[in-house]
Amino acid sequence: MATVNPPRGMRDFLPADKARRERVLAVIRERYRAHGFDEIETPVMEEYDRLHAGVGGDNEKLAFNIMKRGITAETLASTEDAADLADLGLRYDLTVPLSRFYASHRAELPTVFRAVQIAPVWRAERPQKGRYRQFVQCDIDIMGDATSRAEAELISATLDALDALGLSGASVRINDRRALDAMLDVFGFPADERPGVLITIDKLDKIGPSGVAAELRDRGAEAASVDAFEAFLRGLAEPTGSFGAEQIRALLPEGIPDEIVDHLTGVGEAVSAARGDAPLVFDPFLVRGMGYYTGTIFEIAHPDVSYSLGGGGRYDGMVGRFLGQDVPAVGFSIGFERIVDLVSLAEAEGSRSIVLVHDKDVPVAELLAHKARLVAEGARVRLERRPRNLKSVLERAEADGYTSFASVAAGQDEIELKPLG
Amino acid sequence: MATVNPPRGMRDFLPADKARRERVLAVIRERYRAHGFDEIETPVMEEYDRLHAGVGGDNEKLAFNIMKRGITAETLASTEDAADLADLGLRYDLTVPLSRFYASHRAELPTVFRAVQIAPVWRAERPQKGRYRQFVQCDIDIMGDATSRAEAELISATLDALDALGLSGASVRINDRRALDAMLDVFGFPADERPGVLITIDKLDKIGPSGVAAELRDRGAEAASVDAFEAFLRGLAEPTGSFGAEQIRALLPEGIPDEIVDHLTGVGEAVSAARGDAPLVFDPFLVRGMGYYTGTIFEIAHPDVSYSLGGGGRYDGMVGRFLGQDVPAVGFSIGFERIVDLVSLAEAEGSRSIVLVHDKDVPVAELLAHKARLVAEGARVRLERRPRNLKSVLERAEADGYTSFASVAAGQDEIELKPLG
Repeated sequence: MATVNPPRGMRDFLPADKARRERVLAVIRERYRAHGFDEIETPVMEEYDRLHAGVGGDNEKLAFNIMKRGITAETLASTEDAADLADLGLRYDLTVPLSRFYASHRAELPTVFRAVQIAPVWRAERPQKGRYRQFVQCDIDIMGDATSRAEAELISATLDALDALGLSGASVRINDRRALDAMLDVFGFPADERPGVLITIDKLDKIGPSGVAAELRDRGAEAASVDAFEAFLRGLAEPTGSFGAEQIRALLPEGIPDEIVDHLTGVGEAVSAARGDAPLVFDPFLVRGMGYYTGTIFEIAHPDVSYSLGGGGRYDGMVGRFLGQDVPAVGFSIGFERIVDLVSLAEAEGSRSIVLVHDKDVPVAELLAHKARLVAEGARVRLERRPRNLKSVLERAEADGYTSFASVAAGQDEIELKPLG
Repeated sequence: MATVNPPRGMRDFLPADKARRERVLAVIRERYRAHGFDEIETPVMEEYDRLHAGVGGDNEKLAFNIMKRGITAETLASTEDAADLADLGLRYDLTVPLSRFYASHRAELPTVFRAVQIAPVWRAERPQKGRYRQFVQCDIDIMGDATSRAEAELISATLDALDALGLSGASVRINDRRALDAMLDVFGFPADERPGVLITIDKLDKIGPSGVAAELRDRGAEAASVDAFEAFLRGLAEPTGSFGAEQIRALLPEGIPDEIVDHLTGVGEAVSAARGDAPLVFDPFLVRGMGYYTGTIFEIAHPDVSYSLGGGGRYDGMVGRFLGQDVPAVGFSIGFERIVDLVSLAEAEGSRSIVLVHDKDVPVAELLAHKARLVAEGARVRLERRPRNLKSVLERAEADGYTSFASVAAGQDEIELKPLG
């Protein structure tokens, strides 16, 4: 007999958890909507070939694949690759489906389209603490805007949503893939070595300049390039708190094109104009894993936690793969599963939630009449037959957000509410 | 290259559609919550064996199955049945997952547990008008209550939700599988023929008493049973508007146990006490397809449409298959995809939605400052660069729920709002 637990790496949500998750999502949704983002939805499945077209990076390997219907023994006997038995798969992110959606519906969408997607994705990861095989992503994306207005709107909306969740004090580490490329050019790393070099640079926080240099040498990089790059790393000042052209230039080698620095400072000025402050930190060694990024990349840091609370970047090339015509695109994803446990939101005030504890002999019609009257008055009402252990029943109700209770006997006209807890 | 359309039989939802669906769901959610139902969530996948254990009826055959990860050519060569390559599947309903959930978490749930589930399910049906391969179900269920209180709470909550959606005037056709069983007993149809007999009775509306009798004869039923049953069908009066023991008895043969009629009248009295009226109609030939029903069954009828807007029933045996101990259970499912197109809900009043149409040369920082100020004042704000065709941009914004717009030039301090439309 199958187990009664949910499938490995996936979760059931009980009422208190589900309510908390929905409260957090409602706040995010409301803030994103205020910032002019429109929610859309795509099916959980996409075509197999779409999901395995090389844009999803490592996540492609983690896709759950859907088997074709009606596979016969003959088909099975003549099939050598299991992939040939799948025609669909569950999405592993919301970026690939959004790009497909945009390519499909472009004519029906605003020229600059600001999308919200709040939906589950699936990855067949080896289960471990804090990693789930089904989890919710909260993405906002702007399609059709190549200017720094797009990044500034994404960052302002995201910081506003975090503020509304009580997670103020967040900052955004920002970089540009083109700056990374230009930097590797300056130090003479050839184009075909760059993906590997970026993987190493991504570890700078952990292994430091000498660690990076050692690993680059192990990768077989040119000694002159590695030496020059290591010297540059060692000579860098710590980033300061402010964000402007001068601070950015100070953390980059000579020879980075102006347009990259201008785009970054444009983002900073606009966020500053929107918020009064711009909690942006230029990090020239921020890499982010996905291969599809083409411009700015960013991550949210928060003083309360050591991990990132979300991230994103520009992926101007992806829609073009579907549409045959490039469309600028940039997205920001809040790490919902990471923040939901950091946030405590109270139930909406003014909601009356009442438990009616009734004797066994109260006629059902009387009970429903009491309940209906209170519901019509705006309350939320739970009926409970008087249990042997009233205390535990009331404690559970309180955990589920109930605030008062009343005893109901047969023939009783008035009910008297008492506060819970 | 894969198509940019969603997979066959599945839908993308654009902003206006998505917003409308979410507004309808919010109303249903709020009403169900008021009636003391608690929302839960289970993963979209269940174990393959669980989904194919014979409780899902015909829907089991329509399940999308998930392929095991890492299937090698060797495994493939030694596999004769494609089902052996699947370890998980997408749920085809919310009842099987709820029963599994309840069996898993019973100790953490109230004795009488009232669940709401609002979530997608998947069925690989042949696509046709109005049938989708991914669609949302809205279920409420009560576990742990064998009394008519459970049916009365479900029906009251459902009618209240429909009222709140502007679909007042709905009625509930109700029957009891035990009454059907007892009726077939009375006419001498043996137990092993009953599933087939019920399929035929389900067509009474369409083919009438003589059609039913003919089909029963074709099935090879005893002539004496068929004749007696046909005579009974022909002799029945039309159901009247009222709902009570007398009306129910008038539509049943002699020999139906009192407890069945008492349970039905108990439901009617309680709904009547809750609502002031009980729009219940006893239909002794209501069957409903699922094999797992064990007691009351019901369907929502509405004068505006010819199809049912939802339905449900008792399935006291299902949890027992998972838990090894029977638990009374009864559920009601609103046909969300059917009602969402019948409902028109206005946007929440008082929400200010503003389009800022700006000249090309307005600095991004100025734009973001305008936007942030309006957002902080409680508005929803969309930025649009002034297009060649302003009219079409404003029309689209109006369709997306925007109510006013303003032009923004560089260096402008004040912005002047004009109503849209």
